[in-house]
Amino acid sequence: MMLTMYDLAGANDDHRFSPYCWRIRMACAHKGLPLETVAWRFTEKDKLPQPNAGTVPVLVDGDTVVADSWKIACYLEERYLAKPIFGNEAARGEALLIKYWTERTLHPLITRMTVRDAWSGLHEKDQGYFRESREKRFGRPLEQVVADREPTREAFRAAVEPLRAMLADQPFVCGQSAAYGDYILFGMFQWARCVSGFELLEPTDPVHAWRQRLLDMYDGLGAKAIRHDA
Amino acid sequence: MMLTMYDLAGANDDHRFSPYCWRIRMACAHKGLPLETVAWRFTEKDKLPQPNAGTVPVLVDGDTVVADSWKIACYLEERYLAKPIFGNEAARGEALLIKYWTERTLHPLITRMTVRDAWSGLHEKDQGYFRESREKRFGRPLEQVVADREPTREAFRAAVEPLRAMLADQPFVCGQSAAYGDYILFGMFQWARCVSGFELLEPTDPVHAWRQRLLDMYDGLGAKAIRHDA
Repeated sequence: MMLTMYDLAGANDDHRFSPYCWRIRMACAHKGLPLETVAWRFTEKDKLPQPNAGTVPVLVDGDTVVADSWKIACYLEERYLAKPIFGNEAARGEALLIKYWTERTLHPLITRMTVRDAWSGLHEKDQGYFRESREKRFGRPLEQVVADREPTREAFRAAVEPLRAMLADQPFVCGQSAAYGDYILFGMFQWARCVSGFELLEPTDPVHAWRQRLLDMYDGLGAKAIRHDA
Repeated sequence: MMLTMYDLAGANDDHRFSPYCWRIRMACAHKGLPLETVAWRFTEKDKLPQPNAGTVPVLVDGDTVVADSWKIACYLEERYLAKPIFGNEAARGEALLIKYWTERTLHPLITRMTVRDAWSGLHEKDQGYFRESREKRFGRPLEQVVADREPTREAFRAAVEPLRAMLADQPFVCGQSAAYGDYILFGMFQWARCVSGFELLEPTDPVHAWRQRLLDMYDGLGAKAIRHDA
């Protein structure tokens, strides 16, 4: 049975950049599960299979529909036992803390650097919705949000220090090989990389080398992704 | 065979507050391993068993000496298989990221709130060393470091948002029950609680309730700890 994932796309159908969808793409590759994707836009709420919360990823597996990346990861782990992405309850639990560290501490810094570039790569039917909702959140035009990205980049590089320090001791978040804890953080870096040419990391940063290892996995699944360089 | 841990003590032999030693105390309780401790002070470098790096914890298990809390945790997990504190490689790996998040992002905030109180609870033979080394690090007197703790407390409460968010989905860092990922973070809270009466958390904070669950575990091992209220 082929799995199907509704996946956020830009103006180009093949421009795929959602950090949440990248987690699932990597998780399916990890488990060796073939995955087809459906290009979806923010404003196509009515095109998602039920049930959903108006966001992607939404996974369709035969008669089963699962929405939300975390629920999908847990579903895949329970339904397809081979090649675990967690392997036990403690690893699943700790990955949830890493998810919230990524989303609550790191994602906002990425957004402040890339939101204008991200807007420029969207399908025109999404651009109005995206600009309006994000400008409401920030209280100013997107162009002003990203006007001076240097201090934010410094803050971001400081915020990923825990990952950098860890990489002195082991090659992946999940130890000697990559698993879901890595894919959560990789999804964030891949989102930034796909929507913007603004480079987050120094080439000498151990985090840069870790990201490259992730980009190269599964026949370069991440490395092949289309980038929109605004 | 009884395990022995060299453990940082204050003026009172029974005042034990090292965040790193608390991790090991909880890990031994988790595994049901009896642990005796030896009160040790910062300035007693020559009293530690070899090999060591001049810090505690140092664990002695028969002819085996292991220094460094992370190495001790990994040693305990390999040597005593029952009741795992990790259980698999991914959980061990992710715990290492949580360790560095705790040490690099959160510990510095704790220090900025509690360092003066911590000094006041030390044995007088340690107070000179402690004050001098910390004042050199901060570039000002300890009294000035902690002069206005409110902004730091706000920053700390914001920094633990990933833990708070996670607690809406599961009761412990390691999922449905506590394990080493919890003990790492608990060690930090216990350190702050043992050296200072300055309350880090609102009583209504889900993190407060999680900390209480950890304090109550293993017959209230953490709850019974002596606090020095400066």
